[in-house]
Amino acid sequence: MKGTVLHSPGDVRFETVDPRIEAPTDAVIRIAATCVCGSDLWPYRGLQPIEGPTPMGHEYCGYVEEVGSDVTSIEKGQFVIGSFATSDNTCPYCTFGYPSSCAQREFISRAQAPFLRVPLADGTLVATREAPPEDMLASLLTTSDVLGTGWFAADAAHVEPGATVVVVGDGAVGLLGVLSAKQMGAERIIAMSRHESRQELARTFGATDIVPERGDEGVERIRDMTKGIGADSVLECVGTNESMMQAIRSTRPGGHVSFVGVPHGVELAGEELFFSHVHLHGGPAPVRRYLPNLIQLVLDGAIDPGKVFDLTLPLEQVAEGYRAMDERRAIKALLQP
Amino acid sequence: MKGTVLHSPGDVRFETVDPRIEAPTDAVIRIAATCVCGSDLWPYRGLQPIEGPTPMGHEYCGYVEEVGSDVTSIEKGQFVIGSFATSDNTCPYCTFGYPSSCAQREFISRAQAPFLRVPLADGTLVATREAPPEDMLASLLTTSDVLGTGWFAADAAHVEPGATVVVVGDGAVGLLGVLSAKQMGAERIIAMSRHESRQELARTFGATDIVPERGDEGVERIRDMTKGIGADSVLECVGTNESMMQAIRSTRPGGHVSFVGVPHGVELAGEELFFSHVHLHGGPAPVRRYLPNLIQLVLDGAIDPGKVFDLTLPLEQVAEGYRAMDERRAIKALLQP
Repeated sequence: MKGTVLHSPGDVRFETVDPRIEAPTDAVIRIAATCVCGSDLWPYRGLQPIEGPTPMGHEYCGYVEEVGSDVTSIEKGQFVIGSFATSDNTCPYCTFGYPSSCAQREFISRAQAPFLRVPLADGTLVATREAPPEDMLASLLTTSDVLGTGWFAADAAHVEPGATVVVVGDGAVGLLGVLSAKQMGAERIIAMSRHESRQELARTFGATDIVPERGDEGVERIRDMTKGIGADSVLECVGTNESMMQAIRSTRPGGHVSFVGVPHGVELAGEELFFSHVHLHGGPAPVRRYLPNLIQLVLDGAIDPGKVFDLTLPLEQVAEGYRAMDERRAIKALLQP
Repeated sequence: MKGTVLHSPGDVRFETVDPRIEAPTDAVIRIAATCVCGSDLWPYRGLQPIEGPTPMGHEYCGYVEEVGSDVTSIEKGQFVIGSFATSDNTCPYCTFGYPSSCAQREFISRAQAPFLRVPLADGTLVATREAPPEDMLASLLTTSDVLGTGWFAADAAHVEPGATVVVVGDGAVGLLGVLSAKQMGAERIIAMSRHESRQELARTFGATDIVPERGDEGVERIRDMTKGIGADSVLECVGTNESMMQAIRSTRPGGHVSFVGVPHGVELAGEELFFSHVHLHGGPAPVRRYLPNLIQLVLDGAIDPGKVFDLTLPLEQVAEGYRAMDERRAIKALLQP
């Protein structure tokens, strides 16, 4: 069968792969939907080195095809969703609520394919009671990473009812950070965006204000809009040094900054951080912790995060999905096997 | 009258100063006790530039000598303690609990003197009901900065009942970080120290373990002592890049790192911070927020933080206080006018 492999920057191929049970704790699932992640663009753009041909994809949901002999909590035929990071759900880090730092963590990286081997299936996968309706697949898929990460951005930035929130970054994670902040009761949600279609989606998800300025000008605007005080919670959803400094400088003393994209070239000066008086928390989103709640919110129809997909392609056209996102013609590309 | 002035690195003089009411919101207090702070050693050692002769001292308690015409909450003769940072106690930052980022903040810098002008007296100073007994002066003095900062270190590192806590730095702030963690119910408190007298005091204040190793070796020891997991809360009480990295690397994913000394030469790599999964919070301690509680704990005899003073000198011998601390012959020098 075929799967997505990145050979070099810009060179995405759909070629033969062969997922099968390798350990008794594995499962193999038949992918119902997968997609391209903003973080896939770092190596695609050559901004993150790869060592030889690299299988791609870490967002997934689908039907259990086969389970290893030690798997007890899921069974063949069930619809399941898992995090981009595997977890045993029993180690101290999982117990502390950080399954994405699980002692046995592996990063999933072969999900843009019709079938996927998932290690630590018992800890990693969450099954729904029944097969979901087709029109919920897109939203359920988002819980696997992009929504889970936007949710973590809001959670790590301590969004509380009544809060003034700023979201730096209008990629899919940032947009779902807006949705998450809205769910957590934020009163004012300011989305930093200069792209009309993304501004519109931000408003749909709950943004009350749009600010197109960036960098120091963006900081200035936030100060103006908050009586000079700064925001309570700022979600940094880009991963560059500029966006990180913009986030920190937009936050009031005692406020919270989260950062959820792998930082590229970020160096924080201790003294500025000290006098900013902000709280800082980030890292790979502990998606597994949020999955049951997020899946339920989707199934209840309370949220519709699948709207971030503005391009749907057959899986074998995955290369076009990368191109469209790279050129910012698409916010996020859904891939159907 | 005389006061302490730093003329150049190593050159501390006790010379004429003249504190008096300058604004109607000022008070002038007669100092009952003051002291030398670890942070005074940065400019003393030439590691922080000064622009010309610099009046020194920011830890103080004493009796109100005179108040400006707008001062309403304190009156002549009262015993008062204030933070090293002035605050109006009414601006948004104060309201959020960060008086040390008050919109009207000034840093006190003339307290190593018999008299001190305190701006924003109503917001900054806390009066006791009656004049305290002489033998509580040392402990009350600590609430003005060194205990308040140690307390913030424990609070910002989210010390909770049952927690495993590491304190990096065995200066007076670190030692009172130990005391604070103990008060907050920490179960295990590991003090990083290689000086016998400081180790002893750390144990007196509640340390359960002493680790003399530093840097990577120190991190290794903490990992060993916590079954490879890392500590829940780590208090960084030094301010160098080495101590900051040691603190971050000693913390478990999801754990909390606080930093309370002005960082000197600290640069944090975004990617390491990201994968560390720690929470980070620090800055100038919001001492004014803690003052009423800390003063009460001292007056109740619940804590005895004054033990950090292992040298007491007449104020006019302030230069010897700096020398003794610089040479680590003393943990902290109390100065008596």
